[in-house]
Amino acid sequence: MQKVNLLQKFDSFSDHWAPRIVARYNQNEVRLAKLEGEFIWHQHDDTDELFLCIEGVLDLELRDRTVTLNPGELFVVPRATEHRPIARTPEVKVLLIDPKDMPNTGDEATATRAIEI
Amino acid sequence: MQKVNLLQKFDSFSDHWAPRIVARYNQNEVRLAKLEGEFIWHQHDDTDELFLCIEGVLDLELRDRTVTLNPGELFVVPRATEHRPIARTPEVKVLLIDPKDMPNTGDEATATRAIEI
Repeated sequence: MQKVNLLQKFDSFSDHWAPRIVARYNQNEVRLAKLEGEFIWHQHDDTDELFLCIEGVLDLELRDRTVTLNPGELFVVPRATEHRPIARTPEVKVLLIDPKDMPNTGDEATATRAIEI
Repeated sequence: MQKVNLLQKFDSFSDHWAPRIVARYNQNEVRLAKLEGEFIWHQHDDTDELFLCIEGVLDLELRDRTVTLNPGELFVVPRATEHRPIARTPEVKVLLIDPKDMPNTGDEATATRAIEI
């Protein structure tokens, strides 16, 4: 593989809530996404999900609290935990780590499939 | 878990080549390390290793090439690939993802065990 410059990769796409795969670590995907507005409540029954905020302010709503991530802050949503990401700035840039092929909504029917770039 | 502010965590320790565990994702550890000078040539037979440069300039020497990481750049060293990290600035701050309990040198006998902070 080649090294990945995160900001260059973010510059290569503009749609929101459509994750891009930029690297693979064992059976996991390193994904980048641009976020705008609210996502849906969902959960991943079989896996944790790592969020690292790169730019903007991201709220991760959980049922019992809200975790607010500024750039340089990370949070791991535990498996089987309902969460809803909300961009608190006009755009948020986030790095995620998810298992290979995991649907971003927790459900194949509603997911936007991650694309390798 | 609580959210993790990377720079605050880096401010909480000063030794080099001694990884700190700041979060867990499934069976993996998110580790932070400060690097100075050269590490040893080593490999991890059973796992990839993810490096994300946070501050400074990091060379990852491989046997056939060198990957130079600036802040905001990441690289995944494939499993069973010899590598040697070298800090090219007086100090480098790096985020790593490794399997739980993986020795940083690839060998329990010479490893500095990662500490949870």
